[in-house]
Amino acid sequence: MNGESPFLVHPCGPPGTDLPPVLSWVDEEGGALRLLDQTLLPGRLELRTCRTVEQVWEAIRSLRVRGAPAIGVAAAYGLCVATRDDRGRARDEFLEAARRAGEYLLTARPTAVNLAWAVQRVLARAADVRGAADGIWSAMLEEARAIAREDAETCRRIGEAGAELIPDGGGVLTHCNAGRLATTGIGTALALLYVAHERGRRFQVYVDETRPLLQGARLTALELSAAGIDVTVVCDGAAAALMKSGQVHVVVVGADRVAANGDVANKIGTYSLAVCAHHHNIPFCVAAPLSTFDPAVAAGEAIPIERRGEEELRWLADRRVIADGARCYNPAFDVTPGRLISAIVTEKGLVKPVTARNIARFLG
Amino acid sequence: MNGESPFLVHPCGPPGTDLPPVLSWVDEEGGALRLLDQTLLPGRLELRTCRTVEQVWEAIRSLRVRGAPAIGVAAAYGLCVATRDDRGRARDEFLEAARRAGEYLLTARPTAVNLAWAVQRVLARAADVRGAADGIWSAMLEEARAIAREDAETCRRIGEAGAELIPDGGGVLTHCNAGRLATTGIGTALALLYVAHERGRRFQVYVDETRPLLQGARLTALELSAAGIDVTVVCDGAAAALMKSGQVHVVVVGADRVAANGDVANKIGTYSLAVCAHHHNIPFCVAAPLSTFDPAVAAGEAIPIERRGEEELRWLADRRVIADGARCYNPAFDVTPGRLISAIVTEKGLVKPVTARNIARFLG
Repeated sequence: MNGESPFLVHPCGPPGTDLPPVLSWVDEEGGALRLLDQTLLPGRLELRTCRTVEQVWEAIRSLRVRGAPAIGVAAAYGLCVATRDDRGRARDEFLEAARRAGEYLLTARPTAVNLAWAVQRVLARAADVRGAADGIWSAMLEEARAIAREDAETCRRIGEAGAELIPDGGGVLTHCNAGRLATTGIGTALALLYVAHERGRRFQVYVDETRPLLQGARLTALELSAAGIDVTVVCDGAAAALMKSGQVHVVVVGADRVAANGDVANKIGTYSLAVCAHHHNIPFCVAAPLSTFDPAVAAGEAIPIERRGEEELRWLADRRVIADGARCYNPAFDVTPGRLISAIVTEKGLVKPVTARNIARFLG
Repeated sequence: MNGESPFLVHPCGPPGTDLPPVLSWVDEEGGALRLLDQTLLPGRLELRTCRTVEQVWEAIRSLRVRGAPAIGVAAAYGLCVATRDDRGRARDEFLEAARRAGEYLLTARPTAVNLAWAVQRVLARAADVRGAADGIWSAMLEEARAIAREDAETCRRIGEAGAELIPDGGGVLTHCNAGRLATTGIGTALALLYVAHERGRRFQVYVDETRPLLQGARLTALELSAAGIDVTVVCDGAAAALMKSGQVHVVVVGADRVAANGDVANKIGTYSLAVCAHHHNIPFCVAAPLSTFDPAVAAGEAIPIERRGEEELRWLADRRVIADGARCYNPAFDVTPGRLISAIVTEKGLVKPVTARNIARFLG
């Protein structure tokens, strides 16, 4: 899983250590995408430089960069990586190369709609530019940078829109990682916590470890503790008992895709939390930029759910933990019906109640 | 975690390979308890011989032997291991040594009541025997053997009482391991599956991997696939989505303690399954011998819940997966209210509905 390590920076420091940017554009050598390899966190901070579109694709597929907003930005830059050596070609040839690169990048992961949204946005910008390939490429890079900048601004607005949902002195449960490491800003679900923390609220965060890839244990615990926020990791199976014990006052998660009716695809395990929160009368909130909404998908059943390899369950480090004769089923996401969601926090405010009509109003 | 390996037998064979007994008494050298070290499964079949009560205590604490019925049997034999060198002492001294050993063994794990039940049963037998220590010790060993034998018979009766709950052509979800590896027989929850399978029913079993110690992935997948039963491992967080998809027709789990009102303590994650099964109108069944019932505990809140070390979450093999600044909370069990349980399958038949009155009738 570790692969090569072109840029070993330094071992991960103590809490408070600033994390490097999740991803950034490198102008040298014709342009490249540099990203923090999240598969190695929290043990190692290692930057990886992608100089080919295949490297960008692999980084997205293998979750070196993950989180719906971040993979959107990665794909936008990925189009620029893909076409950096085509700048001398004829305009039509260049645009065709960009289109093909976009189609290829879309195959890296199917569920998060931000990937398709970002690719379409960069390709639309390219088509709008008159003149030669070199100018189109510069406009594409400008657009990718705009997507990254807007993502950071959107995160801040989501945090400000939703911070009041975090009760002072209360307990918050989250799942997977919808934070700084999933975006180019302060996150989506975790943005609520960062802004509430800035406003002086004190609260206890519980995070599911989030099997199989442990994004909650590895990433959310890292970034929240580095920010001085009290965070406790629990097994995914412990969340319901925590709710029953009265220690959870709100559940906040991110989203990979929001259907037109408010059904939300998010990391596997989210639906279980929504059902249990409903049973305990605990508000269940989703935080997601509008780029995560997909009005073309009427309801959750139509969202493609990525099914990942069984090796993520079958092996624990180098130990085989499941007998050969047994099978594994490893969907990466599940779908939570809108009726179980108290509110969706967007950069334009709260969708509440979560209905097709309210969503249409936000997108309109 | 591996420790010493006094008896390396052979690497784990392919599906169909017979597993050695979970635990057995060894007459040589004054008597010892031999057990299959379940922490090494499914990768290695290794037997461990406990010649001191401290070794038995450690084996129970560290889950080398686990499952409420099996730790009852282990504790019963553990009393014989503890007092095997006291057989030459005066009667009162011997009984006092046995009593102290029982108190010590009770501290190994607090939640499963079978441990206390088995210790009390062996000590009561000891107190009933007239004459010298040597005869008392022989009676204790006889009693421990009876507990082991009765456990196996009880498992079979539970399986026969509950097999009809397993729908032909349906899907069954289970959690942790309540099977051959948790008992001296064919298990409790899994006994229903073994008997249904013998009766020619065909069904698909899903098992949660059961974090943090993966008893579902490591143990249930091993024993069911070895028996030719179709079994698929999923992450704990995937269970609710499986239920929503219509692939689960019944949930069957074991129990570590049943309160007088029908509340059930079982492996962490069980309560989440019960809530989700309730939400999806799927029967949620518990299989437990009557030795697991504790009429002295009125309701689930009074059941002591073992809290285990955070290293079970913080380390994944030799990799640290949680940042230093974050905390961990690792309860080993949770409590499911009786009102969420469709039936409790015992060796005397089904407690259904699960009420204090019905339970009292079974115990009376």
